[in-house]
Amino acid sequence: MFLSILFLFSLVVSSAHASVVDFCVADFSLPNGPAGYSCKKPGKVTVNDFVFSGLGKAGNTSNIIKAAVTPAFAEQFPGLNGLGISLARLDLAVGGVVPMHTHPGASEVLVVLQGSICAGFISSANAVYFKTLQKGDSMIFPQGLLHFQVNFGGIPSIAIVSFSSPSPGLQILDFALFANDLPSELVEKTTFLDDAQVKKLKAVLGGSG
Amino acid sequence: MFLSILFLFSLVVSSAHASVVDFCVADFSLPNGPAGYSCKKPGKVTVNDFVFSGLGKAGNTSNIIKAAVTPAFAEQFPGLNGLGISLARLDLAVGGVVPMHTHPGASEVLVVLQGSICAGFISSANAVYFKTLQKGDSMIFPQGLLHFQVNFGGIPSIAIVSFSSPSPGLQILDFALFANDLPSELVEKTTFLDDAQVKKLKAVLGGSG
Amino acid sequence: MFLSILFLFSLVVSSAHASVVDFCVADFSLPNGPAGYSCKKPGKVTVNDFVFSGLGKAGNTSNIIKAAVTPAFAEQFPGLNGLGISLARLDLAVGGVVPMHTHPGASEVLVVLQGSICAGFISSANAVYFKTLQKGDSMIFPQGLLHFQVNFGGIPSIAIVSFSSPSPGLQILDFALFANDLPSELVEKTTFLDDAQVKKLKAVLGGSG
Amino acid sequence: MFLSILFLFSLVVSSAHASVVDFCVADFSLPNGPAGYSCKKPGKVTVNDFVFSGLGKAGNTSNIIKAAVTPAFAEQFPGLNGLGISLARLDLAVGGVVPMHTHPGASEVLVVLQGSICAGFISSANAVYFKTLQKGDSMIFPQGLLHFQVNFGGIPSIAIVSFSSPSPGLQILDFALFANDLPSELVEKTTFLDDAQVKKLKAVLGGSG
Amino acid sequence: MFLSILFLFSLVVSSAHASVVDFCVADFSLPNGPAGYSCKKPGKVTVNDFVFSGLGKAGNTSNIIKAAVTPAFAEQFPGLNGLGISLARLDLAVGGVVPMHTHPGASEVLVVLQGSICAGFISSANAVYFKTLQKGDSMIFPQGLLHFQVNFGGIPSIAIVSFSSPSPGLQILDFALFANDLPSELVEKTTFLDDAQVKKLKAVLGGSG
Amino acid sequence: MFLSILFLFSLVVSSAHASVVDFCVADFSLPNGPAGYSCKKPGKVTVNDFVFSGLGKAGNTSNIIKAAVTPAFAEQFPGLNGLGISLARLDLAVGGVVPMHTHPGASEVLVVLQGSICAGFISSANAVYFKTLQKGDSMIFPQGLLHFQVNFGGIPSIAIVSFSSPSPGLQILDFALFANDLPSELVEKTTFLDDAQVKKLKAVLGGSG
Repeated sequence: MFLSILFLFSLVVSSAHASVVDFCVADFSLPNGPAGYSCKKPGKVTVNDFVFSGLGKAGNTSNIIKAAVTPAFAEQFPGLNGLGISLARLDLAVGGVVPMHTHPGASEVLVVLQGSICAGFISSANAVYFKTLQKGDSMIFPQGLLHFQVNFGGIPSIAIVSFSSPSPGLQILDFALFANDLPSELVEKTTFLDDAQVKKLKAVLGGSG
Repeated sequence: MFLSILFLFSLVVSSAHASVVDFCVADFSLPNGPAGYSCKKPGKVTVNDFVFSGLGKAGNTSNIIKAAVTPAFAEQFPGLNGLGISLARLDLAVGGVVPMHTHPGASEVLVVLQGSICAGFISSANAVYFKTLQKGDSMIFPQGLLHFQVNFGGIPSIAIVSFSSPSPGLQILDFALFANDLPSELVEKTTFLDDAQVKKLKAVLGGSG
Repeated sequence: MFLSILFLFSLVVSSAHASVVDFCVADFSLPNGPAGYSCKKPGKVTVNDFVFSGLGKAGNTSNIIKAAVTPAFAEQFPGLNGLGISLARLDLAVGGVVPMHTHPGASEVLVVLQGSICAGFISSANAVYFKTLQKGDSMIFPQGLLHFQVNFGGIPSIAIVSFSSPSPGLQILDFALFANDLPSELVEKTTFLDDAQVKKLKAVLGGSG
Repeated sequence: MFLSILFLFSLVVSSAHASVVDFCVADFSLPNGPAGYSCKKPGKVTVNDFVFSGLGKAGNTSNIIKAAVTPAFAEQFPGLNGLGISLARLDLAVGGVVPMHTHPGASEVLVVLQGSICAGFISSANAVYFKTLQKGDSMIFPQGLLHFQVNFGGIPSIAIVSFSSPSPGLQILDFALFANDLPSELVEKTTFLDDAQVKKLKAVLGGSG
Repeated sequence: MFLSILFLFSLVVSSAHASVVDFCVADFSLPNGPAGYSCKKPGKVTVNDFVFSGLGKAGNTSNIIKAAVTPAFAEQFPGLNGLGISLARLDLAVGGVVPMHTHPGASEVLVVLQGSICAGFISSANAVYFKTLQKGDSMIFPQGLLHFQVNFGGIPSIAIVSFSSPSPGLQILDFALFANDLPSELVEKTTFLDDAQVKKLKAVLGGSG
Repeated sequence: MFLSILFLFSLVVSSAHASVVDFCVADFSLPNGPAGYSCKKPGKVTVNDFVFSGLGKAGNTSNIIKAAVTPAFAEQFPGLNGLGISLARLDLAVGGVVPMHTHPGASEVLVVLQGSICAGFISSANAVYFKTLQKGDSMIFPQGLLHFQVNFGGIPSIAIVSFSSPSPGLQILDFALFANDLPSELVEKTTFLDDAQVKKLKAVLGGSG
């Protein structure tokens, strides 16, 4: 009887509807909105929605920048939806570079797990803040500012980065300027880069115009 | 003519679409997201969506804790959706207890309407703030902290509580620990409680494992 | 030894600085900012900062509107600062009126504790939502919209109102139009009210110009 | 090879799902929620979703208030959805008036492009702040407060106004009081206006009751 | 007597403290915090705190980019502090350019007042959205993304831009890369630009390293 | 000349005041408020404000729970202030436990760097979500919910955890219940724990009452 009476108490408190309480695991089959993805029905949520296993193995750095970013954003890790945080793994081979980039909607904090990383950002006042981080060091890159990471060390480096948004976005400067159909004339006008430089990088990165 | 011309003015301003202006009465038949439930079409909204009558009568305190919480959250009171506030009624018979609990996503403020209530919370710094509140006293319980209410007085007590969220959540410590299938071993490991204590309360509250 | 070792654990986690964790009791002697008042030093905070006793007694309704609003905003109840919620008590004598008003920065939810209250609001689309609320009924008034409460019943009515902000503001229409030095010409131009009407109410409410 | 390898890098970062990154162009055919409208699928978004051409021509001021407000809110300009900002154009013929009004969910900032505008607002403390703005002057009207604009100058005036919300709402005082079915008795009780005044304005503005 | 009694009502509602209600005009002599500047004492606030006259005259475009941005951010227009919005005026002589830039903490909406402006932005997915805007056209640039404005027309162009933050920040790409002491080696490594190109622009823009 | 003219452009945009743009490094000597600590003057900020070196070495797990949490919250890492994110390092010796706890104001995401961790949380609906995480796995713990981590593996485990707040708070259940002066009677009443159990743990954890 003790039990059933307590359950009465419990029932009064519980909701008759699928609720927005606690979490909102992304259901990509439903519409999304400015605050994120629609929520999976609570009854279908399992622990696996809250666990992501993709950060365990090294990204493939056999590319020209000798770097790989493996994201665990809401798009890959639906349990993060609506919770204001996400992750990524960064692998930098010797000489590897994460080129100058921004996250339009999030601050980033990085922890070096292996090797060393020369990392920095530039403020709105054009001040440069950069430092060579050693294993165990962490660095914050405030929201929306240009920043970069380079491995000048002798061994591959690894970092875990966290973002203050489940969908932080990633705008890589060179891709934004040279890997699409933004006309060269506009790139040159708005960056003061020489025509030859723009065309060279457009050729490399697959841009047209 | 005055009228029709003014109406022209009005029409320019009005929207051709169902809008998100002013309010967003919950429509539980549509998907929900991190910011709350989808909105009922404005044309179907009536004053009754903004009125809730469930707090008028005493909750049933004929249970082991001699207490009842009657919520008026967005799930019960759809006009609150998206508006950052909700309510509940608290009934405590003589000796009644609202056990140690948290609201994961909201601060709570309580007003005593009848009787007296011994209420308190514990901060992240483990400081305890508690006091016996008399009729007319109010107390704030900051977001996410453990808190409780007990009626040590000689008459039943009643309180109205408000939350800084339309869906504040309610995590009752004993239910979280003892009323589900969280294995006893894990409960004991993570709470330092004795095995006999854990099993006793699991038996009472219907937990397994 | 068990104890002292656990304390080591605790110390690692604790902060060396006065922190912004959990709560921020208003210290009115320090500067305030857009998010609220500066925080009292944690060491000086007591349970009384989280308790407010002003809502226990009836406001004085011996005035022309036969009404009294007793606020428990952050300004009166400093423990609310930064926590997104506040309270007030509403007393309406028979025939009492809370005149047409808005809260510029908050939604309001009202619970009738005694008597009945005819309450309503008007939306941006000029739709009117009003109803006579009985004891125990609650009603939500979405943020920033004109609303009112009137006691047409035979006994005094009492309500507790909660707001989705610790400093909701209160703009009473008649005071805004007629109780200051806004020139009559401007009042008339912008409200279409007749000159005699404006001057009559300015005289009553102490406005000049 | 350089190209294809870099593309591998790019692919790791990109998402397999329609994302909420960067923007959320409103799709009015889908449900909306407290944070705004659902997002159009990224593949269907074009530059025209981010461009609105309606503010280029004068609103029709051949009405009794000699004024026109042309909104560019999310409802008219879907690219604004979720981005925290919107616009409107204000045309005031000689003698034109934007009557006393509020935006329940947004602050407004106005820039005078032509002519002069006498503009002001009233605070919660009933303080009046008004000034005659000349071409090039800008003025801020804090969220939710009553404000107005009048052209006392000799030529038509034009202003661009911006809002801190994509759906700021617009509650015109006279329309709220006199252009709907709110009973005259309630209007009079809650505004202290005379019966004759209320009925006169209800007749003009099409209100009933 | 009517008057004095109503005043009693008013006094109950008013606060004994300088409040954070309605607005928070920036006082630059006090500390600032993450939410903005500290508030000027209400008694010292005048209408001039809410009015800014700097956007009325053309910026000086006699510079190499033939462009001028005149900001009305909280730093110049203290009444905007805490209100989620700000402004700027954009002047572009014939051939003028606002170089590729971001606002780290705000979306921007632009209205063309004179001439035409070729404006565009690039998304996180590297999609380019650009268009030649005519007088009266407006365009939204979502938060944190690279964007630009160029006057390819035959007459000077003018625009008013609004931001979804009182302190939006402005990071001009060329200044961030070439106008400070970020070492050329790092610029080259992280942008793929040639050494000659980097040194040429550093020389022009005053960068060292 | 090119240079000096461009500088003119730059100067128009720059602010005369210490600004709140981009970041707000905590200055613990100034007042704090609900949004965080006051900002250090920009001229005194160096790269070291954005770098924290405390997560590189193992915490001391020679304690009864065989665990250590090393925080990098705004209190330890002032560059995080106002940026919505923070970090901590978790060390668990073999058999180590992070006892049942909540973060009142933040969600947490954990990445296992070494060993395995059995981690879980309990929802408001009393559903349990737990799993043994291997190296490289990450798990999200939604805001304010009870959660725990245990090392049942054969080697020490290490994790990096991130929080969606610069000051997430940490309320350890046992410390909240047993390590302060909350009277045993209240603990027992509100947790249903036996008197002997409460007194035993109070003795161990240094609680009184």
